[in-house]
Amino acid sequence: MYMDHAATTFIKPEVVETMLPFLKEHFGNPSSLYSIGREGKEAVETAREKLAKALGARPEEIYFTSGGTESDNWAVKGTAFARRKKGKHIITTPIEHHAVLYPCEYLETQGFDVTYLPVDEYGLVDPAELEAAIREDTILISVMYANNEIGTIEPVSEIGKVAREHGIPFHTDAVQAIGNIPLDLSGKERDVDMLSLSSHKFYGPKGIGALYIRDGIEIDNYMHGGAQEREKRAGTENVAGIMGMGKAIELATANIEGHNEKIRKMRDRLRAGILEIPECRLNGHPEKRLSGNLNFSFEYIEGESLLLMLDQMGICSSTGSACSSGSLGPSHVLSAIGVPPEIAQGSLRLTLGDANTEEDINYVLEVLPEIVGKLRAISPFYKPASVCEK
Amino acid sequence: MYMDHAATTFIKPEVVETMLPFLKEHFGNPSSLYSIGREGKEAVETAREKLAKALGARPEEIYFTSGGTESDNWAVKGTAFARRKKGKHIITTPIEHHAVLYPCEYLETQGFDVTYLPVDEYGLVDPAELEAAIREDTILISVMYANNEIGTIEPVSEIGKVAREHGIPFHTDAVQAIGNIPLDLSGKERDVDMLSLSSHKFYGPKGIGALYIRDGIEIDNYMHGGAQEREKRAGTENVAGIMGMGKAIELATANIEGHNEKIRKMRDRLRAGILEIPECRLNGHPEKRLSGNLNFSFEYIEGESLLLMLDQMGICSSTGSACSSGSLGPSHVLSAIGVPPEIAQGSLRLTLGDANTEEDINYVLEVLPEIVGKLRAISPFYKPASVCEK
Repeated sequence: MYMDHAATTFIKPEVVETMLPFLKEHFGNPSSLYSIGREGKEAVETAREKLAKALGARPEEIYFTSGGTESDNWAVKGTAFARRKKGKHIITTPIEHHAVLYPCEYLETQGFDVTYLPVDEYGLVDPAELEAAIREDTILISVMYANNEIGTIEPVSEIGKVAREHGIPFHTDAVQAIGNIPLDLSGKERDVDMLSLSSHKFYGPKGIGALYIRDGIEIDNYMHGGAQEREKRAGTENVAGIMGMGKAIELATANIEGHNEKIRKMRDRLRAGILEIPECRLNGHPEKRLSGNLNFSFEYIEGESLLLMLDQMGICSSTGSACSSGSLGPSHVLSAIGVPPEIAQGSLRLTLGDANTEEDINYVLEVLPEIVGKLRAISPFYKPASVCEK
Repeated sequence: MYMDHAATTFIKPEVVETMLPFLKEHFGNPSSLYSIGREGKEAVETAREKLAKALGARPEEIYFTSGGTESDNWAVKGTAFARRKKGKHIITTPIEHHAVLYPCEYLETQGFDVTYLPVDEYGLVDPAELEAAIREDTILISVMYANNEIGTIEPVSEIGKVAREHGIPFHTDAVQAIGNIPLDLSGKERDVDMLSLSSHKFYGPKGIGALYIRDGIEIDNYMHGGAQEREKRAGTENVAGIMGMGKAIELATANIEGHNEKIRKMRDRLRAGILEIPECRLNGHPEKRLSGNLNFSFEYIEGESLLLMLDQMGICSSTGSACSSGSLGPSHVLSAIGVPPEIAQGSLRLTLGDANTEEDINYVLEVLPEIVGKLRAISPFYKPASVCEK
């Protein structure tokens, strides 16, 4: 039973079907001038149009990358280096994905100055605080669309408006938003200048993503080499991956409201059931959160033990972001919203998606309280109480 | 009929079969701790072992990337930035792939100094000239293993020896070499410190590659973010691509001599036949070249017209590197080996591989002289002669 859709999603069968011809017969290099090369080129452009349509963008503003990490690295470092004569100040938040935070830390070693905006207890950025942090030398604002751990959805339109008024390029990591929040870069997201996305978060293949770059934004190339992507992103196109992502975004954005309604109904029942467990708290905003996201902290418990016991019962879950599982220490997101380290250690992320059914909810509600009870029974710190914080 | 294996190769059916389970059932994120994540992790490590074995390296020296371009960018820029306190001088050649040359040009804008070693009329680097170019502040040497346009194989072992004697890290772009030249990083290539490869050049999928980094080499991260690849290359692993590349390298290196013997036999017959066409020349070294590579210049002809007419006859070929087809101007490789621009314009690259048979050779030898004749007949500069230069 898969409850870790924020880490990655299964690939929809229609997506695999779209990819197969490009793994088999249509293998031409899109840069080649002959017919089987042109087939690849046309395929890539068809997929680009699908992405553009799903985002309310123009096809020429979509650049294919190897995934969300490359998109974030390119947006942050590419903009910083291109604009550094205008200033070396960047504004971001402490709850960004590491694919934004670590490029910012790298830029700090290169003489850039980064402001990490405080967020409130739910992980929300205050646009007024953003405005107050803007300086003469601010050259980039990067705030994620929705947080990958706690699911909190940031006020991206308001943030964009502030950025636009001050003439500062605004990047958003929308990796968790695609397919869960309707986006329109020519409408409510018209003040977003760069947007990162990753195919394997919306039922597409791994190893492929895109960066939206609004026409006119100054940005250095990140992958130097061949003339692909209108000489802005070198490297032979991953044609099968691009085709898969094109199909995946089409499917994922066809009926976001219907998808959310179904997921949210399951999610809310799961939330209510889990919150009956004593001494647990919900992390992230109660309402302004992704439809499939739940993140709890259980006192007196190690998240990793919880996860492994859930795995033994056939439930796939996570303690935080999958990408950080190789590194130690409590979640930087939970720390930033003020969860004490000893409680952050006992956190569990359950992220619902198209793989789930109502039966899955029943099963988790049957199994989880027992496991929490067992783990607490062996904890030397646990003294039973019966108040749930939220 | 496909004669452009240097641009890209078809994916072998066994490779596609290896990928499919990872596009279908085994979709877990390798960073996840539960069982389906661990499946992905184990798959990635299996593939890493296959690459290591094929290269004579240790698995922990293999880092997966999105392809040859990323590998080259990482090797060149990552080493330059990591070592810049020791010096800012880099040595490379003017015939490198743009994925090495453009990162070098970028580094020049960042205060680095690049020496482009001259090459001889065949495109060969002289290790003595390399040694003479080394300075106190030289921090990196990058020379490709085999050229993608003219197929010339560089004296990599000798170059490596010079680099090692001077204590300078040595990177080689081996994208064209894998599967065509037996490599042994613990034997004859023991002085290579970094090596780039790209799956889609050896019958694997596009969008996946690797960088070999010898243990102890100083190099900055290039993709900052998650903890993947032992915290050296962030981004969710392209598991299906990695599995495909693992299978592909296993197949491509199982019997390189047998492969080369078959390809070389066809190639040599094709070469002899084509050289009977008047006023043509073979570019690159007559012997020290990749088994499948042929590159000719035909005087009085535009390469693009030749390519398009060959395409009409069902033959896929190239005028130079596919990656450059979006950019204008004559090939930088042909310029560097002294081919005059007006002759470089009329160049044709035919690269043989597993897709070819003896019948293909017959067909090209039947069709090509006619097409050359037709194109020359409409050229205002053409005066018939009967001497072939080489």
